[in-house]
Amino acid sequence: MRHELPTFADIEAAAARLKGLAAHTPLLENAALNELAGGRVLLKAETLQRTGSFKFRGAWNCIAQLPPEQVKGGVVAYSSGNHAQGVAAAARLRGMPALIVMPCDTPLIKQERTKSFGAEVVLYDRATEDREAIARRIADERGAVIVPPFEHPHIIAGQGTVGLELAAQAREAGAALDTVLCGASGGGLIAGIALALEKLSPATRITVVEPEGFDDHRRSLISGQREKNERAAGSICDALLSAQPGQLTFAINQSRLAGGITVSEDEVRRAVAFAFAELKLVVEPGGAVSLAAVLAGKVDTKGRSTGLVLTGGNVDPALFAEMIRGAG
Amino acid sequence: MRHELPTFADIEAAAARLKGLAAHTPLLENAALNELAGGRVLLKAETLQRTGSFKFRGAWNCIAQLPPEQVKGGVVAYSSGNHAQGVAAAARLRGMPALIVMPCDTPLIKQERTKSFGAEVVLYDRATEDREAIARRIADERGAVIVPPFEHPHIIAGQGTVGLELAAQAREAGAALDTVLCGASGGGLIAGIALALEKLSPATRITVVEPEGFDDHRRSLISGQREKNERAAGSICDALLSAQPGQLTFAINQSRLAGGITVSEDEVRRAVAFAFAELKLVVEPGGAVSLAAVLAGKVDTKGRSTGLVLTGGNVDPALFAEMIRGAG
Repeated sequence: MRHELPTFADIEAAAARLKGLAAHTPLLENAALNELAGGRVLLKAETLQRTGSFKFRGAWNCIAQLPPEQVKGGVVAYSSGNHAQGVAAAARLRGMPALIVMPCDTPLIKQERTKSFGAEVVLYDRATEDREAIARRIADERGAVIVPPFEHPHIIAGQGTVGLELAAQAREAGAALDTVLCGASGGGLIAGIALALEKLSPATRITVVEPEGFDDHRRSLISGQREKNERAAGSICDALLSAQPGQLTFAINQSRLAGGITVSEDEVRRAVAFAFAELKLVVEPGGAVSLAAVLAGKVDTKGRSTGLVLTGGNVDPALFAEMIRGAG
Repeated sequence: MRHELPTFADIEAAAARLKGLAAHTPLLENAALNELAGGRVLLKAETLQRTGSFKFRGAWNCIAQLPPEQVKGGVVAYSSGNHAQGVAAAARLRGMPALIVMPCDTPLIKQERTKSFGAEVVLYDRATEDREAIARRIADERGAVIVPPFEHPHIIAGQGTVGLELAAQAREAGAALDTVLCGASGGGLIAGIALALEKLSPATRITVVEPEGFDDHRRSLISGQREKNERAAGSICDALLSAQPGQLTFAINQSRLAGGITVSEDEVRRAVAFAFAELKLVVEPGGAVSLAAVLAGKVDTKGRSTGLVLTGGNVDPALFAEMIRGAG
């Protein structure tokens, strides 16, 4: 697939399409967190987005633009879970059938929630099978459209609406954002945010945060080419396991991101527990990496304004219970 | 104590005092909840307030107005936990020592968090001891000021800022509030909200929600006099156990509330689990009673706009883990 890079105007058009359907999620600030950080930390709570993560934005921006003759064939997506829910909910809003190809180690809650939006779920083995090939075969059979998780200008433009809102809300809060932190799997969200902030807040340094061992974006920014992760599974951050940055997302991110940070599994767990105890927010491990970076002191927050995205909150109750044990 | 009823102007003055110190908490809306309710449900998330509940508003409005000569003696409060944290945080901001008299069955997290704001904690037995008498004795010894949990015009005016914000945010969201639901312990929050909405949204019916067996407000509204609960403890809703409505709060609520609803312990647990799984919010049992009433179908939400307050999110991790088991 060859695609044009999305533009700032595409993000504005996406915002118009999402109006009244996606939540305009709040930019939260917490006294206890500011005190710890020694500066202002502004949290874009995409955990409170429709379907519990930012993914609905890109999915709807993509699905809303499909021509009427493609509605009947439905959509197919491959996803570790949050994109699946976003696509399933968006397809239902458009009146389209949806089939999602999911790794079999996807947390049960994400499988169940995807089905609850009326989607069909097909499982595959992350280590041995190629999800894109499976999705393509099924899409061909059904005459369905594939909604990719990140490698599409409509997806990136949709996720970029997070950046539009973040910039406007930070301005309203009287904060000039020195840094914005955001996790990345394929890099669609951070690419969209980078495009939005390039226009609206050009002095902001945008930094990608990844789990240790899955820092393909960080390494790619250093080497200048798309690096791969060694492992395909085995992190608590199930939402952040794409093998490598997308071509399109890397074309955007390469020149626009300031660099990358990694966080350990323990740091992620502590961030989830902090979000429970202090922020009163349910954040999934993969959604908490930016907060983890702040809490672990891996970003210079002193006397600065730091924006970060809490990207999702779809976490299995049993895992969540284990992570918050002793928090408070 | 005899006090004048607070006025709408007092609530506006409280809002000015709280500006920049209290969070302007978001009014959230959730597609899944709207679908269940068959109407719009607007959630005022005071769980995201400074100290994790609405209580900081009243505490700061009270403490900020103390004359300078009373700063040194400090403040004393009696509280099941959320007011304690609100008072402790407000006292620290004013540079005052704080001592909190707490029932010994107060969830550990509320005790620990109160201490984390620099307050001293003294425990008492809810069933056999009189917390007001203990607080008065200590306050006399120390020359400290008592900050009561609800029975004071400054407290009620402070909590009333929730109503100011709720009315403005609902208007912004294009919703004419048919009903507002709010829990009550002493009734300060709902009294403040009633005073604010009387001016800003007079057609809104304001309904108090209480745990079964602790429905002193509901029964008082029916009988026209301040009724007492039979039990002093034994509900999962530890924040809602005041023995009876206050004189001052009842003087406000009696003519302004539309009536009362009760919810069972199971309904509260389901609401906490729903808030976890769908709203991605951490809500304590006592903070979830209004949501419980909606989810249990005890309020007519069909085709209507219903506002409700999620009053607090300070819940022990072990209890929370137990309540969310199987949610998702």
